[in-house]
Amino acid sequence: MSERLVVIGADAAGMSAASQARRLKGPDELEIVAFERGHFTSFSACGIPYWVGGDVAERDELIARTPEEHRERDIDLRMQTEVVRIDVAEQRVRAKDLASGEEYWTSYDKLVIATGARPVRPQLPGIDAPGVHGVQTLDDGQALLDTLQRTEGRKAVVVGAGYIGVEMAEALMNRGYEVTVVNRGSQPMATLDPDMGRLVGEAMAGMGIEMVNDAEVTKILTGDDGRVRAVATEDAEYPADVVILGIGVRPETELAREAGLPLGTHGGLLTDRAMRVRGHENVFSGGDCVEVHDLVSGSERHIALGTHANKHGQVIGSNAGGGYATFPGVVGTAVSKVCDLEIARTGLREKDARAAGLQYVKVAIESTNRAGYYPGAALMTVKMLAERRSGRLLGVQIVGREGAAKRVDIAAVALTAGMTVDQMVSLDLGYAPPFSPVWDPILVAARKAVTAVRKAG
Amino acid sequence: MSERLVVIGADAAGMSAASQARRLKGPDELEIVAFERGHFTSFSACGIPYWVGGDVAERDELIARTPEEHRERDIDLRMQTEVVRIDVAEQRVRAKDLASGEEYWTSYDKLVIATGARPVRPQLPGIDAPGVHGVQTLDDGQALLDTLQRTEGRKAVVVGAGYIGVEMAEALMNRGYEVTVVNRGSQPMATLDPDMGRLVGEAMAGMGIEMVNDAEVTKILTGDDGRVRAVATEDAEYPADVVILGIGVRPETELAREAGLPLGTHGGLLTDRAMRVRGHENVFSGGDCVEVHDLVSGSERHIALGTHANKHGQVIGSNAGGGYATFPGVVGTAVSKVCDLEIARTGLREKDARAAGLQYVKVAIESTNRAGYYPGAALMTVKMLAERRSGRLLGVQIVGREGAAKRVDIAAVALTAGMTVDQMVSLDLGYAPPFSPVWDPILVAARKAVTAVRKAG
Repeated sequence: MSERLVVIGADAAGMSAASQARRLKGPDELEIVAFERGHFTSFSACGIPYWVGGDVAERDELIARTPEEHRERDIDLRMQTEVVRIDVAEQRVRAKDLASGEEYWTSYDKLVIATGARPVRPQLPGIDAPGVHGVQTLDDGQALLDTLQRTEGRKAVVVGAGYIGVEMAEALMNRGYEVTVVNRGSQPMATLDPDMGRLVGEAMAGMGIEMVNDAEVTKILTGDDGRVRAVATEDAEYPADVVILGIGVRPETELAREAGLPLGTHGGLLTDRAMRVRGHENVFSGGDCVEVHDLVSGSERHIALGTHANKHGQVIGSNAGGGYATFPGVVGTAVSKVCDLEIARTGLREKDARAAGLQYVKVAIESTNRAGYYPGAALMTVKMLAERRSGRLLGVQIVGREGAAKRVDIAAVALTAGMTVDQMVSLDLGYAPPFSPVWDPILVAARKAVTAVRKAG
Repeated sequence: MSERLVVIGADAAGMSAASQARRLKGPDELEIVAFERGHFTSFSACGIPYWVGGDVAERDELIARTPEEHRERDIDLRMQTEVVRIDVAEQRVRAKDLASGEEYWTSYDKLVIATGARPVRPQLPGIDAPGVHGVQTLDDGQALLDTLQRTEGRKAVVVGAGYIGVEMAEALMNRGYEVTVVNRGSQPMATLDPDMGRLVGEAMAGMGIEMVNDAEVTKILTGDDGRVRAVATEDAEYPADVVILGIGVRPETELAREAGLPLGTHGGLLTDRAMRVRGHENVFSGGDCVEVHDLVSGSERHIALGTHANKHGQVIGSNAGGGYATFPGVVGTAVSKVCDLEIARTGLREKDARAAGLQYVKVAIESTNRAGYYPGAALMTVKMLAERRSGRLLGVQIVGREGAAKRVDIAAVALTAGMTVDQMVSLDLGYAPPFSPVWDPILVAARKAVTAVRKAG
């Protein structure tokens, strides 16, 4: 007898789950129905800044798999169809065809909630004016590109200085705009400690980006044509032909909340390691709408990131297709860049460690990506936190040039393995002059951390 | 009462040891005497190919610390002084001033043997002809550069296709030479499995390097002027204005052998984890003259690599200076490049696994360094071995372009931690389109390895 798997949301997590389940079970054993309210499937939201900036020529390059390609794999994909209710007791969802307005129930044996996240959009005067753009979906990206092509002015204001904010600052620089970044925090990149965020801010200022910190946007000012003309804070006005909102995202879990499913303190769905919604054996969830377990602090976090969504989908699809897989959690790795500045972090920041009740030592070192004498040797700063007494690695942040960001992977694996900084000092990392100094920067930081742990007692 | 630490060999291991011991104990507590038979201290032998190739302009850039700098740290450094005998029973060494010929005994409380390695130099007819060069020391490098400046021809033959061989092939290409690499093995880079070595060979041929495999050099042919004119194998002759020997190195342990110290099957000194020569509490050894413990196979290996030598020196200096540190072993990580081709390996090759009695599965995948749609996305091949049944990672080899080599560090840490490929699939590695596809190539390989382990049963 055939089972039915229903998927809500046809992006990374949802369609990875559907594809993996299909690999394990053919259409005779498993019917798969997927609902998507938007126009696109399986696209790379992380790629939008590079499309806007001109590094990626065509929107379609960001689409990993089209609706047609999913359908060829025997997935009954219903586009522009929004799920408006989940009925857990009756094992069914109510879908609405957005074109016709028609609504109908579809029953499920297993359900995947992959509703993603929605951008934070503060209720400010003028926020809906033409020329104010989010960059969450491909439609958002296209609308922004249309504005950029139409705009005669050359001033852009980016609100927010997290990953999306700094990546969009680069994209608009590449488009020839004068860019101002308005940021609520004291430094850009609140995902770093302020001392490391300051390095990012200084480098961005050095690239000609106007950095405005400690500034709360109070309203968006519009001109006679109704289009945006400036962004206002309490203290100043910043002229803008275009405004990008990069303030962050929240889990899209209204449906789940209405269905009585368990949400965490960040508003994301709570799952077990098999990515089943807690307390619900036949309901799975993954991607930007769930909270993930932080292996370092032991608490739950919300991290909207394509790589997690893909892994979640893979795990869900394996389990829903009769296989077995788990997602143990994250250590909080993230990498980004602004022009040639590379930014990376993994594990806990100082405030995360304090919040988790962990006492720590911190060290920071400067080193190079290559042997100092090798052409193109470029500086990076590595900050490392280690637990007091135990010496267990707690976190690493890196700001530098070429070769800086992906070095964080070394720390990510060490965190996953629960290594101490003492153990890290003898890690056998790749050494050759074009690739590393004889002591890799991560090892230099670990050596200094070992001393700091010993001194702290 | 002051102790005396005697160091034999003033390069990476020896002088790291001396410097670290000096950091822990001042000259009132610890006298440090270091003997060096050559002209230089603490230089980067790994940098010589880049100096010869012109990437590094000056010899002195390769010198991390000069004799004068060491002496400023209260180290009694005796240059061009060779230790000709170690008398373990009497705790003394016999030194010979190479200028005056004078010999004398110096007693020690603690001894560091850091005599390094010597290049393999087969006893072939013509091997000592002008124009035939090794590239082990700075003097070697200078002699080669002198030859290159004097040579009117433009043909170079490199004998050997390991790290030194392929790096010297690049260096001579950069100098405008037509390069032939004559290699005993069936593929270059015998530190890789043949299937991965073949990728290197094909790429080098594509760069215009003539690759001659399965060829044993029988003699070096000289011209009327006595200088090299060709390299002969059983089958052919390869015209050469200059010949580079890159056949490998052997531990320089003749002194140690004569002193009755324990050597392993590769001819290197055997040490404990504190880098003390086995059975000798007050004799330490490190760098290219020791064998290292392979954490994956459990056996001893000889690996001549500056990064290990520096770590050994650090450990020896800590212990000799009254502190405590250990060197647990290696996993066999190495990275290299030929022009824009990057080469990396860690852990066991297939034949290493077989020799260790380990049954394994192997997979190979192709992926990119960046998101496929991001400019400059370049291919790499990742091969992964995992133990049958347990799924424990055994080794990784990577051949590709930019961003390929240092990805091996992820596997190096995972090997050190004893991770299974299943655990690796959920590693939280840095993802953003300029740095990685949504599934990092290492994760793609791990996923495929998980399936292979399951199928192998």
